[in-house]
Amino acid sequence: MSEKRARLILDLDTGVDDALALAYALGSPEVELAGVVCTYGNVTMRTAVRNTVALLELLGHPEVPVFAGADRALAAVEPFAPPAGVARIHGKNGFGDQPISGWCRCAPGDGMAFLRSEAQRALGEKDARLLYVPTGPLTDLALGLGSIAGLADALGRVTFMGGALVVPGNVTSCAEANVANDPAAADTVLRGGLRTRMVGLDVTHQAVLTREDTAAWRELGTPAGRFFADMTDHYIAVYEENNPHLGGCALHDPLAVAVAIDPSLVGCLAANLRVDLEGVTRGRTVCDPERLRDARKTCEVALTVDALRFLGEFRTRVTRVLAQARRTPAE
Amino acid sequence: MSEKRARLILDLDTGVDDALALAYALGSPEVELAGVVCTYGNVTMRTAVRNTVALLELLGHPEVPVFAGADRALAAVEPFAPPAGVARIHGKNGFGDQPISGWCRCAPGDGMAFLRSEAQRALGEKDARLLYVPTGPLTDLALGLGSIAGLADALGRVTFMGGALVVPGNVTSCAEANVANDPAAADTVLRGGLRTRMVGLDVTHQAVLTREDTAAWRELGTPAGRFFADMTDHYIAVYEENNPHLGGCALHDPLAVAVAIDPSLVGCLAANLRVDLEGVTRGRTVCDPERLRDARKTCEVALTVDALRFLGEFRTRVTRVLAQARRTPAE
Repeated sequence: MSEKRARLILDLDTGVDDALALAYALGSPEVELAGVVCTYGNVTMRTAVRNTVALLELLGHPEVPVFAGADRALAAVEPFAPPAGVARIHGKNGFGDQPISGWCRCAPGDGMAFLRSEAQRALGEKDARLLYVPTGPLTDLALGLGSIAGLADALGRVTFMGGALVVPGNVTSCAEANVANDPAAADTVLRGGLRTRMVGLDVTHQAVLTREDTAAWRELGTPAGRFFADMTDHYIAVYEENNPHLGGCALHDPLAVAVAIDPSLVGCLAANLRVDLEGVTRGRTVCDPERLRDARKTCEVALTVDALRFLGEFRTRVTRVLAQARRTPAE
Repeated sequence: MSEKRARLILDLDTGVDDALALAYALGSPEVELAGVVCTYGNVTMRTAVRNTVALLELLGHPEVPVFAGADRALAAVEPFAPPAGVARIHGKNGFGDQPISGWCRCAPGDGMAFLRSEAQRALGEKDARLLYVPTGPLTDLALGLGSIAGLADALGRVTFMGGALVVPGNVTSCAEANVANDPAAADTVLRGGLRTRMVGLDVTHQAVLTREDTAAWRELGTPAGRFFADMTDHYIAVYEENNPHLGGCALHDPLAVAVAIDPSLVGCLAANLRVDLEGVTRGRTVCDPERLRDARKTCEVALTVDALRFLGEFRTRVTRVLAQARRTPAE
C-alpha cells in the first residue's frame, strides 16, 4: 500500500495566492517539495525569488531550493514588470505590502538546469513520480519542452493554473492573466502534445476564501499566521472591490497544487486547446477547431470542482503549516 | 411500457440544415410534429414560411401546420434580411438555390397564438410531453416567455441550437450566428429561469455529413432524395471552402432535434449562462460569473456528443423520410 512520495516542483510568480499555494504544498504529506522555480507575472522574477526565499524561511523550510526561471515572455525584449493593476492586487512587494523578513540570501540557481536534473532523476528511477505545477505564465515550461530531452515523459500530466474556457477572463473579457502574460508560451505547451490539466478561472472562481479563515490564522499566534492573515486580507479587500459577488478571494494557485496532488477534486472536459495570439481575443484559451474531432485529447480542462472538499483540505493543510512554523527566524 | 408520444414544435429559420432537422423530426417515431413556427436568420421569416410549406409538401406531410414567428430581433426596427455571407451558405432561397415546388398556398397562422394553445393543451393533459426546439434566434421563445402564462412549465427543458461555449464562434471569434442574430433574446432566455439544453457549435462541429451520404440520398430515386442531395451538396461545398478541416458539413439543427428526442446523445455541463450584449464579444454565450456558484443551474450545455450514434440515427431517420416521399405533388 505504500507509494513513493511524488517530488513536486512549483513554478511560482510569487504573489499572494502563490504564497498560499506554497503553504498548501508544504502542508501536503503526499509530496516532497523538490524546489521552486520563480518566474514573472504577479511580480518580477527577481521579486518572486526574494519572496519565495522569505516565505520558505517564515514557514520553517529554508532547505527547499529556489531557482530563477524566465523573467519575460518568449517574445518580450525587456524583463517583465507588473502593471499598476497587478501591483494593486498583490501589493507592490507581492504580499499585499505586508512586511516580511528573510529576504534573499544568495543568487538563485538556474531553473532550467534544475528542471533538467529533476527530469533525468525521474526518468532514471523506478516508480518515480514528478509533479510540476506552474501557477504563473507557461514560459519556463515552453522553454523546458524545447530544450530538455525527455521532459514531457518525465512530467507526465502537468497541472497548471491558468486560462478560462467557459467563464470570462480576468485581464480582458477573454483572457486570463497567466495566459495573457505569454500567450505564445501557453499555445506552444497546449498544442505541443504534452498532457496537461488546466485549472483555470472556470474552477478557481468557485473556490473562495473568506475573512473568517484569515481571522483563524491570526489567532494561531504565530508570525506565519499573522503574516498570511494580513497578506490575504489585502487580497480579499481587492476582491471585495472588483468581484463583490464572490464574497471573498479566489484560491487560484492553491487549487492547482491541490488538483495536481488529488485530481479527483475536479471534473474535467477532455479537450485540445489553443491560445488566441492576436486580436481582441488575444490570450483566450479555446478548443482548437482543427483538433475538435481528434479522438486523442491532450488537456483535461477542469470545469467543476468539489469546492467544499477542497476548502476543507486547504484549511487543514495551510493551518498545519502556519501553526507549526512557530520558531522561525522572523519571530 | 407505452409512453405517450411527445408533441414537437420546431422553430426554424428554414435554410439547409433546418430542412435536414425537419426531415429528422418527420422520421422520428417518438414524436408527433405538432407544427412549425418560422423565424428569420438563414433567410427572412417570410422565406422560412414558404420554404417550410414547400418542404412539408415534398416530404409528404402537408398536414403539418406552419406559423409565422418573429421577423426581426427584439431590438430591431426593420425586418431581418440575411447578409450576403449567409445567403452564400444557404443559397438565396435558403436551399442552396435548388428549385423546389409547392410554395406557400396561404397566409400562415400566428406563431404566438399556436404556442399559447399548445402550452394550454400540454398543461391541461395528463402525461403530456411538449418539446419545443428552436434552431434559429431565440426571439420567439423570449417573446413567448414574456407573454404566455405557464409557458415555461409547459415546455419543461427547451433544447435549442445555438451558442458556442468552448469553441470559437462562426460569425465572430466569439459569437455563434443564432445568438448573434438576437443576443438580447438569448440572454433573456438564458438568464430568465427557463430550463434549457444548449446544442451549440461545441458539439455540432463534431457531427459531420459527407458527400457519401448525399450520394446515397440521390440514389433513392425520389424527388425528395434528389432535392436534399443537391441542396446539401451546396452546403457541403461552402463548408469545404470555409472549414476544410471538417471534411463535410456540420449537422447543426438536426443534432438539436435529435438531442431533444434523446438527450443521452450528448454529455453536458450544467451551467448558468449569460450572453454578452456589447463590445467585441457581443453574442458570446459564457458562464455568468454572478451565478457561477449557484447550486441551481438552468442550462445543460452539450460539450461532448456520440457523433457515431447520432450519424447512424440521422441516416436511418432522414433516409426513411426521403425514401417514403415517393408520391409527392412535386413528382
